[in-house]
Amino acid sequence: MKDIKKIVIIPDSFKSTMSSIEVSEIIKSSAESICENIDCICVPIADGGEGTVECFSHSINAKKLTVSVNGPFFESVDATYLFDEKTKTAVIEAASCAGITLAEGRLDPEKTTTFGLGEIIKDADKNDAKKIVVGLGGSCTNDGGCGMASALGIRFFDENKTEFIPTGETLSLIKSIDFDSLSSEINKIEIIAMCDVKNPFHGENGAAHIFAKQKGADDAMIKRLDGGLLHLAKIIEDSKSINLQEIEGTGAAGGLGGGMIAFLNAKLNSGIETMLDMVNFDEIIKGADLIITGEGNFDSQSLDGKVIDGISSRAKKQNIPVIVVCGGVSDNEIQKAYSQGVSAVFPITRQAKDFSITRNFSKEYLKATADNIFRLMNI
Amino acid sequence: MKDIKKIVIIPDSFKSTMSSIEVSEIIKSSAESICENIDCICVPIADGGEGTVECFSHSINAKKLTVSVNGPFFESVDATYLFDEKTKTAVIEAASCAGITLAEGRLDPEKTTTFGLGEIIKDADKNDAKKIVVGLGGSCTNDGGCGMASALGIRFFDENKTEFIPTGETLSLIKSIDFDSLSSEINKIEIIAMCDVKNPFHGENGAAHIFAKQKGADDAMIKRLDGGLLHLAKIIEDSKSINLQEIEGTGAAGGLGGGMIAFLNAKLNSGIETMLDMVNFDEIIKGADLIITGEGNFDSQSLDGKVIDGISSRAKKQNIPVIVVCGGVSDNEIQKAYSQGVSAVFPITRQAKDFSITRNFSKEYLKATADNIFRLMNI
Repeated sequence: MKDIKKIVIIPDSFKSTMSSIEVSEIIKSSAESICENIDCICVPIADGGEGTVECFSHSINAKKLTVSVNGPFFESVDATYLFDEKTKTAVIEAASCAGITLAEGRLDPEKTTTFGLGEIIKDADKNDAKKIVVGLGGSCTNDGGCGMASALGIRFFDENKTEFIPTGETLSLIKSIDFDSLSSEINKIEIIAMCDVKNPFHGENGAAHIFAKQKGADDAMIKRLDGGLLHLAKIIEDSKSINLQEIEGTGAAGGLGGGMIAFLNAKLNSGIETMLDMVNFDEIIKGADLIITGEGNFDSQSLDGKVIDGISSRAKKQNIPVIVVCGGVSDNEIQKAYSQGVSAVFPITRQAKDFSITRNFSKEYLKATADNIFRLMNI
Repeated sequence: MKDIKKIVIIPDSFKSTMSSIEVSEIIKSSAESICENIDCICVPIADGGEGTVECFSHSINAKKLTVSVNGPFFESVDATYLFDEKTKTAVIEAASCAGITLAEGRLDPEKTTTFGLGEIIKDADKNDAKKIVVGLGGSCTNDGGCGMASALGIRFFDENKTEFIPTGETLSLIKSIDFDSLSSEINKIEIIAMCDVKNPFHGENGAAHIFAKQKGADDAMIKRLDGGLLHLAKIIEDSKSINLQEIEGTGAAGGLGGGMIAFLNAKLNSGIETMLDMVNFDEIIKGADLIITGEGNFDSQSLDGKVIDGISSRAKKQNIPVIVVCGGVSDNEIQKAYSQGVSAVFPITRQAKDFSITRNFSKEYLKATADNIFRLMNI
């Protein structure tokens, strides 16, 4: 085994137990306490969900701006986004104004809106943004991005030609859309949506059927929401000749993925690839002896366009070994991981007990696991 | 990290899931599949309980002898022990004729006997044994070794001077013991009992109070059994001036530890130290780069005279790093382990689920853990 002098620590969050910043700091402190003269570079990672702005703030030189916008139920919330003056780039997370955390205890994807996201984009435009990166994950909405579009000037009309702001419940009332009312400034901005799913806009794998349940919908509501998205997709196809159903990821964030394409001409990019590009990952890892990444549950999705997949693919090109720490892993995934360039996968679980118990010891377990990895490397 | 060329694999069993032989073979096959030119020496280990004979048979050059003797309920059982013709040494496990596995479904420490153990010792004597090593663990008895003594000629009398073979239930009926009726041949044999507990003969930390419950006793029976042991100890003290209560380990195997001292003049030695001596552990590990040991549950006892304690103490003297694999470990134990010479402790649990579920995946989990240890060392 070669000497380990430079480590890049770039974990995802461990959902519901530790943020990626916490994970990376625990691993770093373990490495520094056990290995002499080790250089640890921490890059907490996010792929577009809640915490994306916080993660980016650790890796790019940008100021935090807070703006008061409409929350999921049109109430006022303070949302924070990043703005890099030098590159005129804004990083926004949809969850900051339409996040499932904001709606806890009153989840209702028929009533919730992405209106606030449009307001944040407007604010970034006021700051003369040339590029806006929007993290889509963790939303509580199913409005196909109509709320966001409304905030940016796009007008929706019902059959009586009455203008309204559609939510999940009222998508099927849309009779016509005035796309041209979008502020012309917005059209000049490069808008990239960070998207970590491949689901289509509607249908059995679409936004409503796959994600609305966790947003509070029952089976009947899911059917209504899916019908609304189908209706919206038809109007968009008729008006703009864009078939959202054929584009991967349009079902992200209750159809917000599709809405960003249809209304704002945004690109849907892989969340992790976007993040890795923005933090200059390929440069950061040059000369590194080891990369440590991780996530809460290493499942079949982990190697399919998600964080660990993105990192191991790039690490492989530079021939840098990757170690994964995680809450749990199954045998099938680990074999696939090896073949994709992952050297080893260490679950942090230290006792054969249910997650309801072990989750309370996540930080101790992660520290002990990191300690043992570094102690083994130090033999 | 230095190159790993020679590994000694010397695990305890993972109780109720894998024998030490299975554990060592899984680790060996993992090492050989991942590391090039690696020399693996497997020494499955036992500290006196069930499986001791099988473990020794892998490490010492001895033939297996099977003899028909009395089982725990005086029924006939076939018991196997080892006999090394060259050194005239026998290795016997009490569990082979008085083991808890033999009594499953009818556990009753008032009725069970160690008589069969005396018969095996007699057989070894017939083979001209000079040294007999007896593993004490895993018994279903509480007869203070009176059954074993009876089989070897020692006579027990009640108040009517009627001879009988005492069991747990009838210890308090003993009025006198004829120690001199022991076959004189037995006195010439060096007898060593492998003992992995420090409990006294009777009282709150004695054989009955600590171990009889798992042998099927309820609280009332425990009191009666403890009374019987106290009574036996008094007769032994009066007759032979041996105070069993003052000797660590006499409470092992339902007082069999004490009985071996009182009746056979045996030595009670640490199980793991006896095993390590007999397999020439200090010689085997010379020049090794790494020792891998393990056990099912790495708890507070593990570092107190048990397998991992014995191995890490000896490894430390030769400055050889020790890695422990285990089912689970707590934070307190791991800190103590580090200070006792253990380099790293890797629990094999790969998912945060209860042991009732994970136990079914023990072999896969161990293989994956060993793979990852070797893959990490191979970076």
